[in-house]
Amino acid sequence: MNNDNTVYVGNKPVMNYVLAVVTQFSNGADEVAIKARGKAISRAVDTAEIALNRFLQGVMKKEIRISTEEIETDDGRTNVSSIEIVLTHRV
Amino acid sequence: MNNDNTVYVGNKPVMNYVLAVVTQFSNGADEVAIKARGKAISRAVDTAEIALNRFLQGVMKKEIRISTEEIETDDGRTNVSSIEIVLTHRV
Repeated sequence: MNNDNTVYVGNKPVMNYVLAVVTQFSNGADEVAIKARGKAISRAVDTAEIALNRFLQGVMKKEIRISTEEIETDDGRTNVSSIEIVLTHRV
Repeated sequence: MNNDNTVYVGNKPVMNYVLAVVTQFSNGADEVAIKARGKAISRAVDTAEIALNRFLQGVMKKEIRISTEEIETDDGRTNVSSIEIVLTHRV
């Protein structure tokens, strides 16, 4: 899967990310991955749910993965949880 | 699956929920479901990751589901995202 089809969810309003996901599919993407870390994980789930329920026809959840990433901060290394939600066209 | 094996994640410190999950497995549960809604979703992912990486041997993620629930508030009905992370003993 191409990285161009990934939407990274951060601290902006959720509809920004929903629009990004919908745009990817409108531009012909077969799959879109929604990724987030830490507190933004909840917003990533909102993004997927709103995109699926309100905007995207014929698209479904393909896979949901959670994992732990080690990141560098000013205070050294720390662990942060992450999520990846892959949406795909229904066959 | 028995509801006794469900841990509902809310606004308490994450280690409270990690302890609840570990205790369920210690008491003989084959599966434990971690559930959360809204902003607590991030903490549910933290709970699963910390429990798996630091405390539980021979336990793996079985399934991760996200969905939208309609809840009643003082201002009427509203939608909220939810997550369910099912952990199970490795076969």
